[in-house]
Amino acid sequence: MKELRLNLGRRSYNINIKAGLLGDKTMFGELADRDVLIVSNETVAKLYLEQLNRVINAKRRFSMELPDGESFKTLDTVTQIYDALLAHQFSRDSILVALGGGVVGDITGFAAATFQRGIQFFQIPTTLLAQVDSSVGGKTGVNHALGKNMIGSFYQPQRVIIDITTLNSLPNRQLSAGLAEVIKYGLICDAPFFQWLEENIENLLKRDPISLEYAIHRSCEIKADIVRRDEHETDVRALLNFGHTFGHAIETATNYEICLHGEAVAIGMCLAIELSKRHGLIDSATQKRIKQLIRHANLPTELPAGVSAQTIIDLMKIDKKIVAGASRLILLRNIGQAFITKDFKQEILMEMLQEYPRCSS
Amino acid sequence: MKELRLNLGRRSYNINIKAGLLGDKTMFGELADRDVLIVSNETVAKLYLEQLNRVINAKRRFSMELPDGESFKTLDTVTQIYDALLAHQFSRDSILVALGGGVVGDITGFAAATFQRGIQFFQIPTTLLAQVDSSVGGKTGVNHALGKNMIGSFYQPQRVIIDITTLNSLPNRQLSAGLAEVIKYGLICDAPFFQWLEENIENLLKRDPISLEYAIHRSCEIKADIVRRDEHETDVRALLNFGHTFGHAIETATNYEICLHGEAVAIGMCLAIELSKRHGLIDSATQKRIKQLIRHANLPTELPAGVSAQTIIDLMKIDKKIVAGASRLILLRNIGQAFITKDFKQEILMEMLQEYPRCSS
Repeated sequence: MKELRLNLGRRSYNINIKAGLLGDKTMFGELADRDVLIVSNETVAKLYLEQLNRVINAKRRFSMELPDGESFKTLDTVTQIYDALLAHQFSRDSILVALGGGVVGDITGFAAATFQRGIQFFQIPTTLLAQVDSSVGGKTGVNHALGKNMIGSFYQPQRVIIDITTLNSLPNRQLSAGLAEVIKYGLICDAPFFQWLEENIENLLKRDPISLEYAIHRSCEIKADIVRRDEHETDVRALLNFGHTFGHAIETATNYEICLHGEAVAIGMCLAIELSKRHGLIDSATQKRIKQLIRHANLPTELPAGVSAQTIIDLMKIDKKIVAGASRLILLRNIGQAFITKDFKQEILMEMLQEYPRCSS
Repeated sequence: MKELRLNLGRRSYNINIKAGLLGDKTMFGELADRDVLIVSNETVAKLYLEQLNRVINAKRRFSMELPDGESFKTLDTVTQIYDALLAHQFSRDSILVALGGGVVGDITGFAAATFQRGIQFFQIPTTLLAQVDSSVGGKTGVNHALGKNMIGSFYQPQRVIIDITTLNSLPNRQLSAGLAEVIKYGLICDAPFFQWLEENIENLLKRDPISLEYAIHRSCEIKADIVRRDEHETDVRALLNFGHTFGHAIETATNYEICLHGEAVAIGMCLAIELSKRHGLIDSATQKRIKQLIRHANLPTELPAGVSAQTIIDLMKIDKKIVAGASRLILLRNIGQAFITKDFKQEILMEMLQEYPRCSS
């Protein structure tokens, strides 16, 4: 088993990565003699809830299924969790278990952060995207009608359990969406990992377990290292948002209906790379190489039809990465060398967004 | 000016206490060049908002008025704040200012804790209860239909500004409710302060500014010291809940309609003292002395009519102070000597609650 530790003082925790962990009782020892509420969604519960129920030895164990999808990542859904916790008279030392993808993890984490001013929770991510990104690092939250993840907390889980066999049930499109975040780690700070991904992308798409375990482990390792240095994103953690300011704008502009999050991030990374090129930071050959890997991962590189440059710019203004009114963006100097900057030209940004190719719808 | 510092590493902050601080521009220097949203309620805004607007020099300054009362301390009201923040495109470096009593402070603090995963906020408490208790220490949150403060976070303000002239507009009943928490500090850990209160209760009720400033300063000092030692209430901070487990049950049982929070705490302290006496911890003379001070502060000591022992016990079960199913209560060994214990007899608790006098309604 690969085990990582995210060192954050008394908020430190382990990230366990291995095929078959959902059947491993030793992962769930902390739940003994506790009241446990497993939060899943209707899709994932069908696949894994029974298996999880068999290995969790709790004082009392309940489970609930949320409706599946980003459109349910709202305060109303969090309230359903509060209602269940209070209906069962759960106290401060009870524990939540998030079984599902990023949406389930973000909602459950936020419920844990805010129920009785904070209870513990486990993350059991079942999508590649959640395994390499959202389950690690303590970002929890829900969407508001006016923007993604606008309501939330930094709140760390007690443990992250990544059973890579859960990826066998993941649709191809979701697997690719997760690969967008994996590629991001190579792009922002690890050129050798990017090269490894170029060489192994077919194995990953074929779900070769050894390749998947390596890619997930390396991704979590990079994320854990960055989060350890800057838990509350005052500084270097913003690098993890590479492609995301554009990506969030694309998701909001298309009402979360056209792109999966990872797909929007893939397009967002392509936009950030185009902007980097137009500022003379990277050359066409590097851009081509990056776009090629993104395409090999079966991810989109063009903007959805009908999304105007002005819409993207307006939506970027309410993104959380705006500080004191000045946009900060993550650009690239080379593969493995991302940096945070306010030093980009608004005209170039606007022109780039106007000229950037759209999908024919 | 009396200035205290609550030392919590990088979450440290100052508590300033003085008559006239609402007119002191130096208190608000951190707000320059920031987007500021002042959150108040319809009652307090009429009295102090104009004055506050004159001293806050912000990039953009907005204000909003919440409806007045504990019944509005809900997630829906928090959502109104999110809506305003997003409508004005407030970013992560914007700042909230809570101008009002405990309800405004708790709601605004929770909005600050959860907007974009945390923005800064100022507390400007305008009731005695908020000045000596809820504005200090970072407990934020709202009520759920099934229990008080069930949704919330530990989240510290950036500064607490206590202008004691605001107490001149406070109704007598609210002043007394605040004195309940002041008396609590003496009872739990400071016998000389308790004695000072016995000697000065008339001056406090007459709103003598020097007596008020001393009482508020000493209360904040005690609270700051306890919070510094145990920010997240895993241990000694629970002492601050003396009388509160009973008090919350009384408030819920009477639908928040009969007692102010401080009044419920006063009754709750009397119950805790009666329970302490019935366990042989304190004698009748001490009990009489304490009840006398509580009565001199114009606070109730009897249970509201119609609240049954069983109702109180049932409601105590869902209080946050329950750990691993076992009730913990704060009892008293002597004036100034409270302690946390699971070691009390359920039969004595039940009998005490059955026999305890009710108000004739």
